[in-house]
Amino acid sequence: MNLNRYLSEKVEVINRGLKELLPREDDYPQTLHRAMHYSLFAGGKRIRPVLVLAASEAVGADPAAALNCACAFECIHTYSLIHDDLPAIDNDDLRRGRPTCHRAFGEAAAILAGDALLTVAFDMIARTETRNRGAIVKVIQELAKAAGSTGMIGGQMVDIESEDSDIPFPVLEYIHIHKTGELILAAIRCGAILGGASKKELGALSRFGKSIGLAFQIADDILDVEGSSDEMGKNTGGDEKKGKATYPSLIGLDESRKRASELVEMALGSLADFDGKADPLRAIARYIIARRK
Amino acid sequence: MNLNRYLSEKVEVINRGLKELLPREDDYPQTLHRAMHYSLFAGGKRIRPVLVLAASEAVGADPAAALNCACAFECIHTYSLIHDDLPAIDNDDLRRGRPTCHRAFGEAAAILAGDALLTVAFDMIARTETRNRGAIVKVIQELAKAAGSTGMIGGQMVDIESEDSDIPFPVLEYIHIHKTGELILAAIRCGAILGGASKKELGALSRFGKSIGLAFQIADDILDVEGSSDEMGKNTGGDEKKGKATYPSLIGLDESRKRASELVEMALGSLADFDGKADPLRAIARYIIARRK
Repeated sequence: MNLNRYLSEKVEVINRGLKELLPREDDYPQTLHRAMHYSLFAGGKRIRPVLVLAASEAVGADPAAALNCACAFECIHTYSLIHDDLPAIDNDDLRRGRPTCHRAFGEAAAILAGDALLTVAFDMIARTETRNRGAIVKVIQELAKAAGSTGMIGGQMVDIESEDSDIPFPVLEYIHIHKTGELILAAIRCGAILGGASKKELGALSRFGKSIGLAFQIADDILDVEGSSDEMGKNTGGDEKKGKATYPSLIGLDESRKRASELVEMALGSLADFDGKADPLRAIARYIIARRK
Repeated sequence: MNLNRYLSEKVEVINRGLKELLPREDDYPQTLHRAMHYSLFAGGKRIRPVLVLAASEAVGADPAAALNCACAFECIHTYSLIHDDLPAIDNDDLRRGRPTCHRAFGEAAAILAGDALLTVAFDMIARTETRNRGAIVKVIQELAKAAGSTGMIGGQMVDIESEDSDIPFPVLEYIHIHKTGELILAAIRCGAILGGASKKELGALSRFGKSIGLAFQIADDILDVEGSSDEMGKNTGGDEKKGKATYPSLIGLDESRKRASELVEMALGSLADFDGKADPLRAIARYIIARRK
């Protein structure tokens, strides 16, 4: 299993899918579509869409049927970054080594580009060519719940309200699970649902998704402390400057690393009954804590 | 046909539906859910959801099956108002006689509440109890397209870019058709689709929807000139202050009134083959240009 080759193949498929499913960059109104493309094609790692495809593969399905859904997850992720970066929220100037969307296109266009990416995500899933419309409806529910006010947006709200205040560990865990974990879990569940997972497979993949979702955010926290701005393509150390509670700030770097490793081991354990078709998921789980950006 | 009674009955059904389908006001995180409820239950006219239900009735269906979809349209409309009012966009302090969402809850919460209402709209439709999942998927596509970057958000983008500049009439019409018209048209089409409209019925209702969608926005422009702030519950005369092109500013008040009346007559003409079950739609079309707010 060569993860780098697997990832670069999938990223190519996903980027092609996104270009086909999105309005073009020069479609009217151009500012809006340019802002959407600017943020969507900024060199993101495409972890969430890759997880959609890999989960479909893990249950023995052709991942092509999950491509629209995979692209939708990337749109949701990108919209959340655009809105998080806004002056009223995180007020970030740099993202993936380039000016953030509102720095490049203005605040109004950034708000609307985020709205449009969120909206088009549901359109992409609804446009999936399939006779199994029950699965499509289910996947839309999963995504909307994970991205909604009791999911990702809820996590973001609590994150904002917790800045510059001492928060207890359970609140930090709530933020991480909701802000990052829910969407990662949903990506895996949606890929599995579209792939026709059995109830047992869906259960195991959900346990896998919960573990790596939290591990992913802990790893992000660690990188914000350890990584250089060059490697990360954004200003690191930002969490500390903003007075944001993180795993390292609450339980220390060593304990954070240990917790992330344990979660990845738990994730791998959840896949015990899966055969080699789940190897990409296994490799991604290991990559999550090994990555440098 | 008593329109007032019809509207108040429907508004009650819609408000009950919204309360059932939304997370509660005191659900965690509370600031977010309070902001969502604050804007959603601010005494809106519920025109779009009423149109969903009335279109279902017009094709002889029980409107109950379209209630989730009707509620979704109100969530989309409300989110668009919250984001439009933001400092970076229209910078409005007053909406429906109360402080705008960002004035009441802060800008970050307002951005996120808008995002959450947009997201929950798709969840509501996907949660419709029906065996006809093909219709649900179709309706999600219709809504996403109408609300997306080549629909409502596109209209908003062009509107922002056109402030303080002389715009030609076709651009004004683009703004109106996209910013307001598309969502009204989609509300009618979605109600018809969920009601099992024939191709011919859907065609006629689409023509009806296009006409009243544009008439509605022209009437809004006229009210912004003529209405008092008390009646409208928002600062009127705002279009002129912002240097926004409107129908009255481009073709005059009399010509605008004439154009709105013609559109309503065209709309009524589209319903020629419908029986009394389309009377609510007919009455709403007339109300659009007669309303005082």
